[in-house]
Amino acid sequence: MAFSPRELMARAVQLAERGLYTTMPNPRVGCVIADADGSIVGEGWHKRAGEPHAEIEALRDAGEQARGKIAYVTLEPCSHTGKTGPCADALIAAGVAKVVFGMEDPNPSVSGNGLQKLRDAGIEVEGPLLEESCRALNPGFIKRMTLGLPLVRSKSAMSIDGRTAMASGESKWVTGPAARADVQALRARSCAVVTGVDTVRYDNPNMNVRPEEMALSAELAAASAEKQPLRVIVDSQLRTPAKAFILQGDAPTLVVTTDAAEPERRARLEKAGAEVLVLPADKEGRVHLGELLQELARRECNEVLVESGATLSGAFMYQGHVDEIIVYMAPKILGSSARPLFELPIERMGSMLPITITDMRAVGHDWRITATTDIER
Amino acid sequence: MAFSPRELMARAVQLAERGLYTTMPNPRVGCVIADADGSIVGEGWHKRAGEPHAEIEALRDAGEQARGKIAYVTLEPCSHTGKTGPCADALIAAGVAKVVFGMEDPNPSVSGNGLQKLRDAGIEVEGPLLEESCRALNPGFIKRMTLGLPLVRSKSAMSIDGRTAMASGESKWVTGPAARADVQALRARSCAVVTGVDTVRYDNPNMNVRPEEMALSAELAAASAEKQPLRVIVDSQLRTPAKAFILQGDAPTLVVTTDAAEPERRARLEKAGAEVLVLPADKEGRVHLGELLQELARRECNEVLVESGATLSGAFMYQGHVDEIIVYMAPKILGSSARPLFELPIERMGSMLPITITDMRAVGHDWRITATTDIER
Repeated sequence: MAFSPRELMARAVQLAERGLYTTMPNPRVGCVIADADGSIVGEGWHKRAGEPHAEIEALRDAGEQARGKIAYVTLEPCSHTGKTGPCADALIAAGVAKVVFGMEDPNPSVSGNGLQKLRDAGIEVEGPLLEESCRALNPGFIKRMTLGLPLVRSKSAMSIDGRTAMASGESKWVTGPAARADVQALRARSCAVVTGVDTVRYDNPNMNVRPEEMALSAELAAASAEKQPLRVIVDSQLRTPAKAFILQGDAPTLVVTTDAAEPERRARLEKAGAEVLVLPADKEGRVHLGELLQELARRECNEVLVESGATLSGAFMYQGHVDEIIVYMAPKILGSSARPLFELPIERMGSMLPITITDMRAVGHDWRITATTDIER
Repeated sequence: MAFSPRELMARAVQLAERGLYTTMPNPRVGCVIADADGSIVGEGWHKRAGEPHAEIEALRDAGEQARGKIAYVTLEPCSHTGKTGPCADALIAAGVAKVVFGMEDPNPSVSGNGLQKLRDAGIEVEGPLLEESCRALNPGFIKRMTLGLPLVRSKSAMSIDGRTAMASGESKWVTGPAARADVQALRARSCAVVTGVDTVRYDNPNMNVRPEEMALSAELAAASAEKQPLRVIVDSQLRTPAKAFILQGDAPTLVVTTDAAEPERRARLEKAGAEVLVLPADKEGRVHLGELLQELARRECNEVLVESGATLSGAFMYQGHVDEIIVYMAPKILGSSARPLFELPIERMGSMLPITITDMRAVGHDWRITATTDIER
């Protein structure tokens, strides 16, 4: 079976996707080694941080057959010494004749170095090929490398009239089981899940990844359960109850607060297993969200999922921090007394936020809307 | 070219759809005459009230070839004398051997009579075939015949956060040109378009059908321009300005009010060309919407389009009058100060209104959501 270069790169993208829930903080990368006719002799993907990169896996799979062949890799091979040595060196040592890359390394301080090293060793280098698909594997990693900030994804569940909960706060089961399973996949690909203290107090969620609710292979399920995202509570006054479910379980929990919080509350939450971090306050006395995101980037968070009520989600949105909006729309009408999707004080149409809907699909009886914000950065 | 019975009925449905904007108050009906092998010898559809029914058109098209053939007709042929005589008699006179029908006549007082007449004349009768598609041609006609009420379709344009206008009322161009053209098609298929006095005062819409904004053939465009829906303003106090655009143009305008309205206002609107009708008030002193719908049914309205703000649309919804909801969702966020989709006072999730989303598709840069209400009648 012989494939075209585009097909081989598409295969490398597919392989990279197997690491969707597990490579963090590293990028998801896939690699295919094929001969000039397009017959595959080796495949590999990066499984998780600390384990071999995709190129190393593919070279191992190809063995001696790698010599003189073409490597298709979704991301520029690294030139720096990671835990398994620079991939560029490994490709050179294996004697591959040509490397086709999907995108250059997004880290501006090393971008192009790997390709140059290959060229210097006499290896032909071609690319980018299928760059858009390759970039789509790692939106958070790319943003962190280029802007020093994680990608922020806001997730909400609403009725068709844009309401997330009753005025009382009652909100259980707005959406159905298929949508809730889909949310598990969003959590599993995230490095951190951010919520607000009001959601913790009212809904008392676990905010953990429950792989048994996702349709995953046993191996992937185990890997994603092990790689729980950091749970983050935005709580300027430290009102999180020490017995909240979100402080329990194996996943770590970070409570971010301001110096207005009482020290004894901090001690109580730390005793309950949480890490408490004081961040600067914004001018309304709330946790400064820009500072929080910088902190999460320092902790190597690529993708951050905001799962909260209208106030915190609205604040992330209003301050221009949100890159992607995911809304699960349930076939229900909750009425005009119910709570809004985003608490956002916009007075004139000229100030409304334009977005781009990139995907809309049925998820069980609900519909999932995916949109990107049209923010100039 | 030979077709199966299902294909022939599907063809009859297609023909019937050509009358979508023009047959009112009659139903949309199509007819195909074919031989036993499925070769078509005649086709016809009902074009507009006062012109021949579909069967007559198809028999004329087939001429002498109709003898011994099979007629596929989307609706049971009528047995009563309409403007072109009973279709059952015409089919008998033309000597067709068999009639396949899509659905029985929904009028309970004549349902089955046409089929019986055909059987009595020795014609083989089969059906219903493709009943769901045949019923979908005439949801309003069917509801009016069975319940004495028109089908009510509520149309709104909103942002993804479920907002239709700013708090100030500012709402122009929430959706794009493709969605607005689509609304023209909704109006064109309606017998009446209902709005509220606040929309008239704030937006000053024409509420007419502008076929040049729809992608129609010249013939259909002319026919649908000629068949303008009745424009209805719900205006309990007669606050409609006499110079409002909605009172102008060729389409008739009906202002429904209560006996609380001042007589001189009534005279002014009548002088401006409107018909003013006093209806009973509900207990809040507003026009009783159930009475309005009964009146519209008496005027032979099959499909009624409600195009209004959140208050009137919400009242239609809350009182259980809405059959179908059409929402155009624009890729924008208008924020939580903006106006709701429906003004609906629901306090608990147990009281929320469940709906069924039947269609969701891109219309230009916007998305159209079609849903049916799950109301038990």
